[in-house]
Parts: sequence; C-alpha cells; structure tokens
Amino acid sequence: EPGLSYANIVDGVNSSFLLLTAALVFCMQAGFAMITVGSVRKKNARHSLTTICCDPCVGGVAYYVLGWGFAFDPVQNFTVSSPSLQPLSGITYFHSNGFIAYAHFALGGMQSPLTNDGVENGATLFLWWFQFTFCLTAASIVAGAIAERVRIYPYMGFVFLMMGFVYPVISHAMWDENGWLNVGYKRGTDSNSIYGAAGSIDFAGSGVVHITGGAGAFVGAIIIGPRIGRFDENGKARPMPAHNASLAVLGGFLLWFGWFGFNPGSQLGTLGFVYDSSTNSGSITTEAGPVALAAINTLVLPAACGWTTLLLVKIVDGSFDCVIMTNGFVCGLVVVTAPCSTVPTYSALCIGIIGAFVYFFGNKLVVRMGIDDPLEAIAVHAFGGTWGVLSCGFFSKPDYVAMTYGPPNGSGGVFYGYGKQLAAQVTEILYIWGFVSLIIGSYFLAMKFLGVLRVSPEEELAGVDVTVCGGHAYPDDDAGIEEDMDRLR
Amino acid sequence: EPGLSYANIVDGVNSSFLLLTAALVFCMQAGFAMITVGSVRKKNARHSLTTICCDPCVGGVAYYVLGWGFAFDPVQNFTVSSPSLQPLSGITYFHSNGFIAYAHFALGGMQSPLTNDGVENGATLFLWWFQFTFCLTAASIVAGAIAERVRIYPYMGFVFLMMGFVYPVISHAMWDENGWLNVGYKRGTDSNSIYGAAGSIDFAGSGVVHITGGAGAFVGAIIIGPRIGRFDENGKARPMPAHNASLAVLGGFLLWFGWFGFNPGSQLGTLGFVYDSSTNSGSITTEAGPVALAAINTLVLPAACGWTTLLLVKIVDGSFDCVIMTNGFVCGLVVVTAPCSTVPTYSALCIGIIGAFVYFFGNKLVVRMGIDDPLEAIAVHAFGGTWGVLSCGFFSKPDYVAMTYGPPNGSGGVFYGYGKQLAAQVTEILYIWGFVSLIIGSYFLAMKFLGVLRVSPEEELAGVDVTVCGGHAYPDDDAGIEEDMDRLR
Amino acid sequence: EPGLSYANIVDGVNSSFLLLTAALVFCMQAGFAMITVGSVRKKNARHSLTTICCDPCVGGVAYYVLGWGFAFDPVQNFTVSSPSLQPLSGITYFHSNGFIAYAHFALGGMQSPLTNDGVENGATLFLWWFQFTFCLTAASIVAGAIAERVRIYPYMGFVFLMMGFVYPVISHAMWDENGWLNVGYKRGTDSNSIYGAAGSIDFAGSGVVHITGGAGAFVGAIIIGPRIGRFDENGKARPMPAHNASLAVLGGFLLWFGWFGFNPGSQLGTLGFVYDSSTNSGSITTEAGPVALAAINTLVLPAACGWTTLLLVKIVDGSFDCVIMTNGFVCGLVVVTAPCSTVPTYSALCIGIIGAFVYFFGNKLVVRMGIDDPLEAIAVHAFGGTWGVLSCGFFSKPDYVAMTYGPPNGSGGVFYGYGKQLAAQVTEILYIWGFVSLIIGSYFLAMKFLGVLRVSPEEELAGVDVTVCGGHAYPDDDAGIEEDMDRLR
Repeated sequence: EPGLSYANIVDGVNSSFLLLTAALVFCMQAGFAMITVGSVRKKNARHSLTTICCDPCVGGVAYYVLGWGFAFDPVQNFTVSSPSLQPLSGITYFHSNGFIAYAHFALGGMQSPLTNDGVENGATLFLWWFQFTFCLTAASIVAGAIAERVRIYPYMGFVFLMMGFVYPVISHAMWDENGWLNVGYKRGTDSNSIYGAAGSIDFAGSGVVHITGGAGAFVGAIIIGPRIGRFDENGKARPMPAHNASLAVLGGFLLWFGWFGFNPGSQLGTLGFVYDSSTNSGSITTEAGPVALAAINTLVLPAACGWTTLLLVKIVDGSFDCVIMTNGFVCGLVVVTAPCSTVPTYSALCIGIIGAFVYFFGNKLVVRMGIDDPLEAIAVHAFGGTWGVLSCGFFSKPDYVAMTYGPPNGSGGVFYGYGKQLAAQVTEILYIWGFVSLIIGSYFLAMKFLGVLRVSPEEELAGVDVTVCGGHAYPDDDAGIEEDMDRLR
Repeated sequence: EPGLSYANIVDGVNSSFLLLTAALVFCMQAGFAMITVGSVRKKNARHSLTTICCDPCVGGVAYYVLGWGFAFDPVQNFTVSSPSLQPLSGITYFHSNGFIAYAHFALGGMQSPLTNDGVENGATLFLWWFQFTFCLTAASIVAGAIAERVRIYPYMGFVFLMMGFVYPVISHAMWDENGWLNVGYKRGTDSNSIYGAAGSIDFAGSGVVHITGGAGAFVGAIIIGPRIGRFDENGKARPMPAHNASLAVLGGFLLWFGWFGFNPGSQLGTLGFVYDSSTNSGSITTEAGPVALAAINTLVLPAACGWTTLLLVKIVDGSFDCVIMTNGFVCGLVVVTAPCSTVPTYSALCIGIIGAFVYFFGNKLVVRMGIDDPLEAIAVHAFGGTWGVLSCGFFSKPDYVAMTYGPPNGSGGVFYGYGKQLAAQVTEILYIWGFVSLIIGSYFLAMKFLGVLRVSPEEELAGVDVTVCGGHAYPDDDAGIEEDMDRLR
Repeated sequence: EPGLSYANIVDGVNSSFLLLTAALVFCMQAGFAMITVGSVRKKNARHSLTTICCDPCVGGVAYYVLGWGFAFDPVQNFTVSSPSLQPLSGITYFHSNGFIAYAHFALGGMQSPLTNDGVENGATLFLWWFQFTFCLTAASIVAGAIAERVRIYPYMGFVFLMMGFVYPVISHAMWDENGWLNVGYKRGTDSNSIYGAAGSIDFAGSGVVHITGGAGAFVGAIIIGPRIGRFDENGKARPMPAHNASLAVLGGFLLWFGWFGFNPGSQLGTLGFVYDSSTNSGSITTEAGPVALAAINTLVLPAACGWTTLLLVKIVDGSFDCVIMTNGFVCGLVVVTAPCSTVPTYSALCIGIIGAFVYFFGNKLVVRMGIDDPLEAIAVHAFGGTWGVLSCGFFSKPDYVAMTYGPPNGSGGVFYGYGKQLAAQVTEILYIWGFVSLIIGSYFLAMKFLGVLRVSPEEELAGVDVTVCGGHAYPDDDAGIEEDMDRLR
C-alpha cells in the first residue's frame, strides 16, 4: 500500500535528519567547553572543564528521569484512521495542561511496545533526543557566569534542577502541542489557531533556550558575587583576560557549526505526510523551505553581528579583539534562533547589526552594574535572546510565518502592519525571565544561605584547580626527571 | 515502476545516512588526537600527534589494499528476481568462510561496473567507508597505551597489521553475513537462525572495535614496558599528569559527538526495502526504532557512567578531576556500543553506573599490576568493552532483540529468562581477546626482540619530540629577534 | 499523484543532504582557525584568529549582498510541463552569460514567493548555503600566507573582494549551467555536450576553490613580503616554527572531517528525479554512486599523500614532523577534490603519492624563491590544487565520467586514450591562476601603494597581538593577586 510506504519514508528520512542535526547540537558542548575554559583564568581552567563535563552527565540523567516527563507527551504525527496506517499514529496519551506535562518520566510508556514493524514511535524517541540537546544548551550557558568560584556539588544540583525541571517546563509552554505559549496551539483542529494561546514565535529557542540559560546566568552571577579582585575599591572593573584566546575562538566556531543543527533542525524534518481519509492514502510534502531559510539566516545574521562587534570594539576600545568578536557572532547566533525561519535575509542583516549593539553595550552595562560574568553570558544569551524574541514581533514576514506555522495570513511583525504578535513576544520574554529568575534564583539563594555555594577566599585565590580539582590544567613535565637520569647512569 | 523508485529511495536515503554517520565517526579521530596529546607529557606531545596522524594515513592504505578484502564480500541487500529490480541486487560474489573473506582486495571487482543508472552498488561502497572508520577507531585506541616511548616505524607496522588484517578478520566473524559470530547468521534463509552460529549481540562493536583496540593496548603496554620513572624503586606509581586538560576534555567531547554516528549509524540506514515476488513490487519499511533507541542510550549510559566516575574520584581520591571524569564518560561510550539497541534506557542507566566501577577500579588494577598506560586505554576500552559485550547477555530485552535482529522471540538476556545469549557473549569476548593478543602480541614481541620497538632511554628522558620529531610541540617565539631589532635600527 | 510526492521526496532528501554536508564544510572554518593559529608564532596568535573570524563575518555579508548574484541563477532542477508538478520547477530567471551572472544580488527574486506548499525553491536556497561554504573556504586559505603582518582593515577588504566577486565569478564559469568551463554545459539539451564549452572536470573544486585561494595566497605573500627575520642576510630561511603543534594537527583533522561534506556533498544529493512527459509522472533514481566513490577517494588519496609526506620529511629532513605531515594530508585533500568522483581508487592512491612530492618539494621551491608563507598555503592549495585539476586529465575513467556527468562515452583521461580532456583541465588552471592573480594582485598592490597593507616594523617585532589586537593570546594569570591577598588578610 503506497500510504504506508510513504509514511515510512517520512519517518525514516526525518529520523535521519533529527539524529544528525541533534548530533550537531551536541557538538556545541565541545564548543561551550572550549569557549568557557578559554575565557577563564589559567588557574581555574580544570575547574571550568569539570562544570562543563557535569552538564551532559548530570543533565543526561536528570532529563531522562524527570525532565522529559515535565516537558512533553508523545507526539502524534498524523491523525490516521485506517487500520493499515495505524502503526504510524504513535502512542498518544495526553496527560498535560498548558503549563506542564506529568506523565512520561523515565520514558515510561514510550519504550515498551517498541518494535521495528509494529508501533514504531521512532519520531517520539527522536524528539526526546533532539530536545535533550536543547535542554543541555540552556544549562551550559550558566557555567560561565559563575565560573572560577562555584562549588561543584551545588553546581550539580543546579544542573539537575535546570534540566530536570526548569527548562522542561518552559519548553512545554512553548513547544508542546498543548503549551500555552505555542504559536501552533490547536493548529490541528482550529484553522485560526495561530492566536489560540499566547502564540509566541520562537522557532529554535532564543527565548526557550537562551533567555532561560541567560536569566539563570544573571541571577547566578548576582547571587554568587564577583570574583575576588574583579572590581577595585572604587568599583572599577579590573581586566581578568581570557587565558587562551585560541580555545575561545575554537569554541565559538564549534558553536556556530552546531547551530546549523540547532536552527534548521528545529523544523524537525524535511518531509511531511498528508493523510487523505477519503481515499485512505497519503501523500508527501517537502518542508525544505523553512530549513533552507533558517540555514541562510543562521549564517548571515551572526556574520553581520560579528563584523559589527569587531568594528565597535575597534572604535570604542581601540583594538581588534577576536575574543569579543567571537562573543559577538555567538550573540548573533543567539539572536537568530527565534526569527530564523520567519524573517527575510535582509531583515536578518539588520537584526544582526542591532544585535551587536545589544551585546556590546549590554555587556558594558553588566560590568557597570558590578556583576562579574567571566563569559559575558548575560549579554550574549540573556540580552541577545531577548532581542531575538522581540525581533520576531517586528520583522516576521506574514507569508514566512504561514510557511512555517501553517495557517495563512495568521500573523506577522509590526513592520508588516501586525501588532498582536509583538505582544505575544513580550509575554514569552516576561514569562521566561520571571519563571527562571524565581526558581533558579531561589535555588542559588538557598545554597548561599547554607554557605555551600562558593569556594573559600583562600581556595579562590590559590586557584580552584589546585585546591579542588586535583592539580593544574597544564602541569609541568618532569617531576622526578633528575632521579631518573641518575638511575639511568 | 514503483518498485524500482522505492528501491532507489532506500538506496539514496541510506547512503546519505551512512556518509554522514561515518563522517561523525571519522571526527572521532580529532577526538583521539586531542585526548591522546592532552594526556601525555608536554615533551612528548608532538610524537603522540605523529602516531595519531599515522592511523588514518597508514591505515587508509592498509584497509584499502588488504583490510576490506579480509573483512567483507559485497553486500546483497535484497533478494530480487525481477529483471527490472535486478540492478539493486548488487554484485554478489561470495568467497568467504566463517572466519575470513579473501576476495575483494583493493576493492577488486567492486568498482569496475560502477554506473549511476545501472549496477549501482552504492550500498557496498558505503559499507566500505563506514567500516573503515570503525577499523580506524580500533587502531587509534592503542597509540595512547604505548605513547611517549614507541618508535614510529614499528608503530606504522602495527597500524598496517591492525587495519590490514586483525580488525578485518574480527569484523568478518561478527558482521559478515557468513561470519561465525554473527547473530543474524543465515537470517535470510532460516527464520530461527538467531542461534545459527555463535550468535553474539554486538550492535556497534564494544567487542569488535573496543576489545580489539583495548586488548592491543594491553599487550602493547606490557611488552613495551613502563615509561622511565613511572614506577619508583618500590613499584609505586609516580604521577605523570596529563599536560593539557583542556585538550583532553575537548577530545572526550569530540569522541562523544562522533559516537552519535558510531552507534545509531550501525543500523546502516533508516529505511528498509521489502520485495514481494508475487506482485514483483516492493514496499518500504522504517528502521528508525533501533536508531532512536541507540541515540538515547548513547546519551544516558555514558552520562551515568561519567557522573558516577566523578563521584568515585571525589570520594576515593579526594578531587573533582575532569580528566578522569572524561575517561569515565568515554568508558560509558565504549560500554554502550554493544547493547545500545537492545536494552531499555533504565537498564542502560544501571549498566553505566556499573561501568564507572569497571573503569575506575579496573584502572587502579592496571596500575597495581605495574602496567603503564598513559591514556588508561586498557581500563576504558578493554575492560569497558568487555563489560559492554557481557551486559548484552544480561540486559537484552527480547522484543528489542527482535526489533534489531529480526526473528521474533529469538533471544534475550539472563534477566529475561534466557541463558544461551550470555554464553554467546562470552564466546565473542574470549575469541577477540585471544585472537588480538596472539597476533598483535607476537608482532610487538618480534619488534622488541629485534630491538626496534622502543626509543633509547636517552631519547626518552630528553623527550621524543626533540630527539625524534623535529622539535618541541610548543616552541618559544623569537629566536633571533634581537638581531632583527638591531637590523631594524 | 505519485509524481508530486516523488518530487517532494527528492527535494526533502537532497535538502537534508545539502544542509548537513555544507555544515561539515562550515566546520572546516574551525579547522582553518586551528591550523592557522597553531602554525604562527605565539606573539601573533590572537591576530591570526581575528583574520579567520573575519572570513565568515565579512564574507557572509559580502556573499549575501554581492557574491551569489555574480555566481548563480536559481537552479532549474527539472523540466516539468505538468501543472501539477509545476511547483517543483523553481523560479528560473536566466540573466547570465558564460563569464558572470548579474541578477540575484541579496537573494533578490528568490525569497519572495517562498512558501511551504507552493513554489518551494528549497533546492536553490540550499545551493546558496552550500556554495557559500565553498566560497568561505577559498577566502580562508589566504589568511595563512599573509599572517603575522597584514593589517586588519585591508584584510577585511580582501575578504569582501574575494567572496563578493572573485570566487563567485570563477564558480560561475565552472558550475553555473551557463558557465563557459562547465563540463555539463548544455547537458540538458545536447547529449554530446560534454565538450560543449571548455568542459573541465573539477567535481568539488581543486581549481575553483583551492587554486583560487592558493593563487591569492601566492600573490599576497609576494606583495606583502616576508616577515622580518624570516630570511637572513644571505637569503637563507630561518625557522619560525609553529607555536602549537597540537592545535595545528587538530585543525588538520577538522579539515579532513569537513572534507567528507565538501567532496561527497558536491553531488548535491543522493536522489534524482526523472520526469516522463508521456505519462506525466516521475520516477526516482539514486545518485549514490559518485557520492560513495568520492567518500572513499577522499579517504585513500590523502592517506597516501600524508604517509608519503611523513616518509619524505624523515628521509630528507631527518625527523618525523607531524605538522608537515598534516600539511601533507591536507594537500592530499586539496588534490582529491577535483578527481574524487571520476577516478578509481587505485588511481587515487597513485595521485596521492605524487601529491606528496608536489607539496613537499613545491614548498621547498617557495622558500627558495624567498617567499614567506607561514602556513605553506601556496604549496598545499595552489600547487596541490593545480595537480588535482591536472590529474583529472590523466586518470579520469570514462565510465565514471559518464556516471557523474551524464553523457556516456563522453570523455576520459590520457591514460584511457583521450586527449582533449587534458586540454580542458589546463584551460581551467590558466584561467583561474590568471584571473585571481590579476584581481587579487591588483588589490594588494593598491593597498601596498597606499601604505596600509602591512603593520609597521615596530608593531611586527613586538608582536601584533599586543600592538593591534588588545593583548596576548595566552596572558598570565593573577595580575593584582598580591593586593587581593593583602586585602583578604
């Protein structure tokens, strides 16, 4: 039967697509590791690496045991009534409201009838894998802002909280079929549903991923306080430069590479399946349009942002600083994550140039406020993410919104004569900033109150690598080489 | 004709899948390079890089000229009788027994009738490319165990032997249609064949790849002997710490990234083609189930293993050591390679936690035995791989085995009431340990006997970078800058 | 209707393929960054990173605004007359001649009617993305040759010129349907067209990408002149060794990884669509053959080249130098880029061995000529690329040429009795060397004449990191730690 073969083609092709785009997102972990370790001081390098290693290790367990259960129900890809097409319908138990899901912890009820020829459910498992990598990104953002001084055990607790609860709840609101922020809310049953709920546009998560991580970095950096010596007696910032610019830039490029999985991959596939109940058969559509647009914008917007940042740092600070430029194009990547599939590329170019100002002067503001953020994660992810979500409310092109989210003539940006979309974007921003600050802030405050959040001043000044992590990141050779020489003679 | 288009779709989609998953596996070479160079001492960094560069360069020639010929015959994807579907049947000359193949050296007989519209055989060529990257991994494991002291020429010989003969023979036994260890042996003609031969489950090669590499590392490290100064007069180990923790952790993350090609890719495709001779037509099935399960387990098991390792090193050794943690999650990757598509994720979590103990105390045992393994490759790959293969005999879920390997109700682990599977797993383990130790051990012994295996003590103490490899890995700047300044004036 | 579903399958599958292979090519940027920074001196590391960051940032804007417009018109994938298949036909406005295109600047006319179910045009947008990454590679090659001394602003200008004009014009000549060098020129309408225009074979761009970049490096290095102190009073070269061999080798492996997107990806998809106007339906073909062959050759040829290089450097210079070996296998990658899909693997092996001599002695020639090229980019890319294009004229196997380019028995190499193909290859080489030298040379000469091309001798001797780029790449820790300690007490 052509219908079943067609449905299988869509399942197989999209599965391959999700496997590989999510793998690229996972590669961003190598990028975060390098940009983080490169940007801290040498004496704390090993410690920073340890925190980044905790992200996938602690978070992998947390998202498996709890996170996914709070985030999603199994996806129902197609509404299929034919018995012969039934296998494709997936296992659909809806146990969620607009705020949170609460059914499938530890993949419960999703792995049992997994067979190759029967109830496949491959797409749901791939959504797990794809979403995990996004959740991981949100957690990894925070490490940099509290680097060089956070204790490891409370950091583990933070990762468990972020990946086991905070990010999942936010991702549910935006991307679950029942989520209250979902722009496609009840899309299947209501053709005018683009305004069904709050209806925010956030294609790959400038808000869901990056405001979440960035707001966590913001409250974390404030609560833990600045590194000793970062501000002098007059509150003036003293430079604590990145100890390895090569690794920082490497990290930036690995992030950019991974982002070509992050953004285009958020379409979740390049093929679509349309079921015709009158003939009990199906046909296949291509969804390559949003994927292609996302890829191009993920290139052009960060390029414009990075270049503008370099010119800004040259003009304002007098030097061509590649580490700041790297932060600039990473900020561009953060910005483009929301609007990548709904704005034309000339708009992306403008959004990117503005993004450079958001990052560059945003970071100066953070420093002026006396907040010490070694990675500049607040300016890059929190401010960049906010600008990214906002930009959808201004620049989204109606026919692109229709291409990506379905209902024609549903919505668009202020510059195309629409207004409500901007309100939806602001709603998302406020919700994420508020929810994350509340939960993550409470956790860090509790840890601080218990006196376990931060290493002692002695440990900090000697460097946490030696005092906590077992030694220098770059130890000298040849301890004992003299005796060896003697023994050899 | 729908059948031919369908077959072509399967060929094209799976080809794309194999190209990219194998590319990810190749990227593990960058990971091996970084984890190896980062883990040795600074004075031997350049030398370690040279050995890792030899792996793909020497091994690429060896696998092309000899290796594949010993490993596989061209694959017969479909049993097709229709003339119009004939082109898909591939070129199938079977010249092998259960132990070894011996026909298609230098791709002989596989490239000549290669045309786009006729006898395609793309799948066979992609199997070459995919299997090469696995073979390369097996060879790369050994470099770390004999690092800082092996001579380059005998190392080249080792790579040629490993990739031209040893790994191919083992991969033939497990994965060739006629291999005596193949769990799917005679699957096509005998529906009860899951016990046809030894029938070991090793989805992506905890045994075939990692015991092979790890056992080579084991005999290599014993035969070449410890680095000068590694053990003091009383046989107590002296620390020779990794010279660059940042690069070691980078290597670990690149390995994890590549493993998402390694394990899910071992399904060899996301689509299947079923030929119906009665109607001379075909239909397409999805094989996304095992791919998805492999991806999730490749995340969760190493995560649990890495986290447990960090807690172990903190509790036992008193520090949060990110290099040991990295080895921990890499060991988890090794462990999950065999069972990734046949165990549920809650089992994977348990296997990972046990894996951390296998690695951590296994490595302490290696050191206690007076074996010097700078990369801890023996504990990670040999012990981890052994535990991975064993775990399939305990935890394999019968319906997942059926999903992955075909015949329903064929087999399962001890915890599901089956016993024979465990015996098959032990058979594989013993065969690989024995075969590799015999051949690779003989080679290293012969080189040692000839006096060419190891650099001289003087070279070793001065550092092989300066004495063998043309200079330091990180030379100082500005030799001659004073004269230049003078000349400028 | 099966035809439309089929066409959509091809569009979706090939889009996924292009997204991911191009992402791998983009990852080469991380490779270029590492091989470049690793190969320069420590005092100029940050500066080199800045130039490499400019490549995608400046070039992304340049290619978007100008480059693509000079390079391509939208692609017409299928000649479709059926209204129901019409959507797949793309938007085809041909405004080009054999030398240059001049219509679609800033993606004009290509994004407006972008919808998911209507006029898709995904393939054209993906061609933009794929071609951009190739253009980026061409630009990145040059940075190494003029490293440690070029000013940043004129470097930005160079990137804009290269990616906004020079590479696009060359890529038009070779790969646009109307390009005068295109081997498939008028393939659609003239079955004997393989000789239609100049008809050069350059599958993935040994010439288009690597001669372009390498010739730019050549004229750039000559015009800017050698680093102070590189040659002594007698013109003898003084070694200025790579400051970080680990990063250089990492870069080499990342390049090799990315090249598995570069070469196999140049087939632009694994599926083909054939429209049958008599029945108004379509069928699907597989194009996996050239993809598979390209993958295998991209492994074997560089392997042979790298291994031979290591033996050469050992025999000639007396050391096993991994940095030179890395340049060797990178040169092999450059060489295989043109012939990867038209030569059998035994020929690739021979071409690779010869390639090692081309690189190794070519580089000695460059040094002898008094040209200072810190990255050896001229020998690797200019000479390697020239040999790669030439090799197609000798080794191309006629049935492989037919598989890749369509018309049977059209062409082949000298060793198969054909002669005209070699003339076409020489034509391409001369055109690219000439055009690039003229335009890029004029630009660098003009900058030199204006006195803005190169930093001052004082800046150069002190190191451009401190004088231009805001500080050392690897600054010391703990400025001000003493005061902090005091304050703590």
